Amino acid sequence: MTRWALVLSLLFAPGAATQAPPPKPPTFAEVLAAAGSADWRAVDPENTLYLELASGRVVIELAPAFAPRHVDNVKTLVRGGYFDGLAFIRSQDNYVVQWGDPDGGDAQKQRPIRNGQRTLPEEFTRALTPDLPFTRLPDVDGYAPEVGFSSGFPAGRNPKSGRAWLAHCYGMVGAGRDNAVDSGGGTELYVVIGNAPRHLDRNVTLLGRVVQGMERLSTLSRGTGAMGFYTKAAERTPIRSIRVAADLPVAERTPLEVLRTDTPTFEKLVESRRNRREEWFHATAGHVELCNVPLPVRPAAMPAR
Amino acid sequence: MTRWALVLSLLFAPGAATQAPPPKPPTFAEVLAAAGSADWRAVDPENTLYLELASGRVVIELAPAFAPRHVDNVKTLVRGGYFDGLAFIRSQDNYVVQWGDPDGGDAQKQRPIRNGQRTLPEEFTRALTPDLPFTRLPDVDGYAPEVGFSSGFPAGRNPKSGRAWLAHCYGMVGAGRDNAVDSGGGTELYVVIGNAPRHLDRNVTLLGRVVQGMERLSTLSRGTGAMGFYTKAAERTPIRSIRVAADLPVAERTPLEVLRTDTPTFEKLVESRRNRREEWFHATAGHVELCNVPLPVRPAAMPAR
Repeated sequence: MTRWALVLSLLFAPGAATQAPPPKPPTFAEVLAAAGSADWRAVDPENTLYLELASGRVVIELAPAFAPRHVDNVKTLVRGGYFDGLAFIRSQDNYVVQWGDPDGGDAQKQRPIRNGQRTLPEEFTRALTPDLPFTRLPDVDGYAPEVGFSSGFPAGRNPKSGRAWLAHCYGMVGAGRDNAVDSGGGTELYVVIGNAPRHLDRNVTLLGRVVQGMERLSTLSRGTGAMGFYTKAAERTPIRSIRVAADLPVAERTPLEVLRTDTPTFEKLVESRRNRREEWFHATAGHVELCNVPLPVRPAAMPAR
Repeated sequence: MTRWALVLSLLFAPGAATQAPPPKPPTFAEVLAAAGSADWRAVDPENTLYLELASGRVVIELAPAFAPRHVDNVKTLVRGGYFDGLAFIRSQDNYVVQWGDPDGGDAQKQRPIRNGQRTLPEEFTRALTPDLPFTRLPDVDGYAPEVGFSSGFPAGRNPKSGRAWLAHCYGMVGAGRDNAVDSGGGTELYVVIGNAPRHLDRNVTLLGRVVQGMERLSTLSRGTGAMGFYTKAAERTPIRSIRVAADLPVAERTPLEVLRTDTPTFEKLVESRRNRREEWFHATAGHVELCNVPLPVRPAAMPAR
């Protein structure tokens, strides 16, 4: 570098001593505190399930954009009382809990279905159409060409195949099936309680996400049978009922809001996780895995009276 | 392609109809069933901790290759009875459980340390030396330039910086710290119970892995305070004792073997997870994330009598 070039570079260098230092990027907590009411959306009661256990309520947001037939069928089963009195039949450590009919494998003893279907064609993936919201993560993912968030749900997509799908992150809810791809339908549902089993992506129909009460499921005592199935009826946690939130009187609902994933606020929130700014952190990752992005939920603001 | 080239290519084409189809790659269960005794190694009792709870024993394998000073210190604390009668003070859903001294923040009331240190210099990473065993995963990872397994522990490494470190997978055990990097030492230890919090890599000293009894920790009821801390003493799960396995009579030990991670068998096992061959699977991932590779453990074969 010549002397003049050096002088010029010093004169016009960014961050010269007379300038203020660039503002420190916000932390996750700071992004969330600065979010406005337009950054949140109410969870639609018509697409919300309340799973009632002795320990309390588990709230599930359904994803009709990805699994319309399964969502429809599960709501139909719910409205017919199909799940009431059934139980959690499986709790496998670092994997899933699963509920359904303990006698589901016995054609003589299994609970009859009054409304709805026992099995459905699979909805492992859906068409990647222009109307599908998708906020892409900037980082590499080993399980999908592109990953991100679609209306609050973690998802993958493949522009070459023209398909999109929900991803198996913690708290995601899916429809158990046997070996045949069309052997599920929503009579048995599982929830991810461990490290994201992303190898299940595109292999099972995911249809929703637990937005409140995960700790009631993740702490269910593990089953000692193969794949975490309970071996004795007494070990199973009974399901008091499952209801569609819209079917309950307003006073009995749990109104929730989830942070929108299609906003500048959400992009800042992701960045606050890619590079942690909290004082505790020593090394920053420069990366965040799809299932490590928190999806904030809060009680809905009460309407003005 | 000319006619002759076409004829030649057909004549010498692999996979002609007269050849047998290539053998189907083995599943995880098939790889494991075919493993010989040389594929397993005994867990060293001198590097094994038994954490005794009312619900039973949790077995931890220590990693002195990555955190020699912390492992030494924790063993010294254990041998001085430091942990006996302390408790789990934190259980945060989808994150960690943590044990230590409930009065650890109170200089007047905290338990005195007879043997060992309260704090130590950090061991977030170690030198990447040629003698460090490392079986590299073939796949991309967002949190480290290279990932794989070192003597049974999930790890990352960076050839440019010349450093290696343990990775925050499910069941990994680390030394809690305050903001100062040298404020930990092993008096408070945490265990990962949720989706791998890999952003903690290179930020905390990891020193071991739970090899048996994870379900006793992952189901601890969640704390309702900030970050999952329990707000009442009665909520805490007491620690009856922690012992170094080598200090117990042989009859009171839980002899375990872990699958070696530096063998052709382990490479086959990884491949069986990169592309699942079980009949149930419809789509294969062609990828496995570091923390999704199972690390098999079995009761040790009894010596011949």
